[in-house]
Amino acid sequence: MTGNVVAFDSNYALVPKSEIHFRIEKLQRWMASEALDGAFLFQHVDIYYFSGTLQRSILFVPVSGQPLLMVIKSLKRAQTESPLEQILPLKGRNALPPILSDFNYTGLNRVGLELDVLPAGHYLWFKKTFPHIDGVDISPGIRGLRMIKSAYEIDQIRRSAAVTDKGYQTIRGLIREGMSELELDGLLFSIGRKNGHLGLMRIRGWNQEMMNAHVFTGPGGAAVSCCETPGNGMGISPALPQGAGFGRVTRNQPIYIDYGVNLNGYHSDQTRTLIIGALAPTLARAHACAKEILDVLEDQIRPGMACREIYQKAKDMATEQGFADHFMGHGEGQVRFLGHGLGLEIDEFPVIATKFDMPVEEGMVFALEPKFSFPGIGIVGMEDDYLVTAKGLERLTLTEQILLKI
Amino acid sequence: MTGNVVAFDSNYALVPKSEIHFRIEKLQRWMASEALDGAFLFQHVDIYYFSGTLQRSILFVPVSGQPLLMVIKSLKRAQTESPLEQILPLKGRNALPPILSDFNYTGLNRVGLELDVLPAGHYLWFKKTFPHIDGVDISPGIRGLRMIKSAYEIDQIRRSAAVTDKGYQTIRGLIREGMSELELDGLLFSIGRKNGHLGLMRIRGWNQEMMNAHVFTGPGGAAVSCCETPGNGMGISPALPQGAGFGRVTRNQPIYIDYGVNLNGYHSDQTRTLIIGALAPTLARAHACAKEILDVLEDQIRPGMACREIYQKAKDMATEQGFADHFMGHGEGQVRFLGHGLGLEIDEFPVIATKFDMPVEEGMVFALEPKFSFPGIGIVGMEDDYLVTAKGLERLTLTEQILLKI
Repeated sequence: MTGNVVAFDSNYALVPKSEIHFRIEKLQRWMASEALDGAFLFQHVDIYYFSGTLQRSILFVPVSGQPLLMVIKSLKRAQTESPLEQILPLKGRNALPPILSDFNYTGLNRVGLELDVLPAGHYLWFKKTFPHIDGVDISPGIRGLRMIKSAYEIDQIRRSAAVTDKGYQTIRGLIREGMSELELDGLLFSIGRKNGHLGLMRIRGWNQEMMNAHVFTGPGGAAVSCCETPGNGMGISPALPQGAGFGRVTRNQPIYIDYGVNLNGYHSDQTRTLIIGALAPTLARAHACAKEILDVLEDQIRPGMACREIYQKAKDMATEQGFADHFMGHGEGQVRFLGHGLGLEIDEFPVIATKFDMPVEEGMVFALEPKFSFPGIGIVGMEDDYLVTAKGLERLTLTEQILLKI
Repeated sequence: MTGNVVAFDSNYALVPKSEIHFRIEKLQRWMASEALDGAFLFQHVDIYYFSGTLQRSILFVPVSGQPLLMVIKSLKRAQTESPLEQILPLKGRNALPPILSDFNYTGLNRVGLELDVLPAGHYLWFKKTFPHIDGVDISPGIRGLRMIKSAYEIDQIRRSAAVTDKGYQTIRGLIREGMSELELDGLLFSIGRKNGHLGLMRIRGWNQEMMNAHVFTGPGGAAVSCCETPGNGMGISPALPQGAGFGRVTRNQPIYIDYGVNLNGYHSDQTRTLIIGALAPTLARAHACAKEILDVLEDQIRPGMACREIYQKAKDMATEQGFADHFMGHGEGQVRFLGHGLGLEIDEFPVIATKFDMPVEEGMVFALEPKFSFPGIGIVGMEDDYLVTAKGLERLTLTEQILLKI
């Protein structure tokens, strides 16, 4: 607490020192195994993960020794938020070389960079500033380390999922026939925000944007668009062609709500289908199939099972019930995954997909989202968040796994 | 409209064909003057600006001839949304070279890339795929073209500003003592969303994140953090250290609301200070100074005046009234600009700042935001959006320029 500039409320929850030290050690061990001399982290979320602060900075983590957190703004706040021991002011990136010299990091040969997110301009500056250093992509490595959650992180996601549940319970009492998708979307945001949602969801993928909620009533839910998700929605403008459209709640039409919360940096991500009246028979069967898929996977997934095997099992069940052409979208909109890792970003590892051979491991947290889309009609399905334990899956999301009747 | 896959509501407003053709011509003329053979656009917002669709794609614009919009997903929707004539399917970026060959774009020597936003991984792929092409940064050029708004764009920003005003008028009737900043923030989002806010605000700057609103009551408003803005706020977590904190509306303390709307892609951005009771004398003087600065600038700005001159005029007025140390933030949090361009992103050109020699031109749209921050006390000020016309400034934001009493 530095005078009256920063006065943290007791609810402003800093990342524990032990957590940061553990993460830095993990990164250093991994870098040693990869013959890296260190890593320069530029992306704010990676910096937060390894330092506990999201203040504007560059983080250098040597393969052994103290990391250097070099802060452009705000230094005072970074010093209060981060438990790292070397926190220094940085007057822009060109002040980086003398700092490295001061700390005797002059013999670096091979270092890691986040090439999936670091802008080319920054990369070219780095190559010009350090012409003798080989900068290799460590994003897959970092995402691999971040994939296994600590007890602290699992607790954050649990708390996040509790707010998501509150969203469903509250909105269930507010939905009326004729309400617009936009109005429901706004209400879901305000319920989450009042209960601690940070206001933004984070996605790492290039050019991708993550909305707080996707609310679809009826046919708009089956619209195909640019998102890597089974339900894109129409949106209300080509300038953001996803999410709530101009639809309104209509009796006997599925109300699909894919809703997330970012609590203290950690995302939960849940989908439920709601209804006033009753689903058409085909949609009811598809919704039941989604529930069966989750039941079977909750029962059968164990550490060691390959991600692609999980995807295949779900796909087989959908095919057996005649829904192959609707599983995870339809036509051009069909996506080839069933789930995705969750943490500080909503597109973390693992991906539960054909191309992901990786086995499921204890400490992973991911969403599974069996969904069925019918052109001209709408989309139904469910999504829940799971922790992998030694025994199998533990569900972290709390809302009952049923078609929610209004 | 391709069958039942895409059925646009009449309110789903496509970008006019004439608008897209005009923009492409502008880009081609500019490329000719820069001796560029063409440009590969990868960033979604730039692609939207030049094609009218935000579907996942790569846009190649040759210095003369038809642009090629190569679409990964959704092709059908891009074909419906974009008035460009060459819209082709693209099965991932590695399918790019044969398409260029098919269209006889084989002799490219020097092309433009968006090096400020394009990830290094994409850039390295481009260099490897096209080793003989020189890829130069055209982001400043594109931002320069986007800086001058068309009549269509000005109309979008006007409509956006009308929704922002609705936010202030509505929230004014809802604020009560004891309400939390988070609750007000949620309400502002839901008011905007119901009236067409797309749900996300866009900022181009690396690692920067734009919230829908910054709501500060009292001391939290003066907290210093990582944002390039005079008021950062505490936030409620180090994972997103900006915006609403744990404060609550308190009699005689300034309620600062910086609120934006993204309507059909176009941003409006406004700030008002509200109060229950009365401002302390120093804050009241500072608030009056902000209003005087806007009055003088509204009166004096003409095409041809340098951006830095505008900043300096405002700073001089603040200094004369004894507020030099509080103008646009305090201490480490003081920023060196008074305003920023607005359009499809909230950090467009021009920047009204010392380092910006550029003269103000007809067709520019920017926000001016004189604000004063007092450590331990709070922040007051105003922000309005302006169009530069031949005669001078026209204010686009509609809310009365006063301290809003509740």
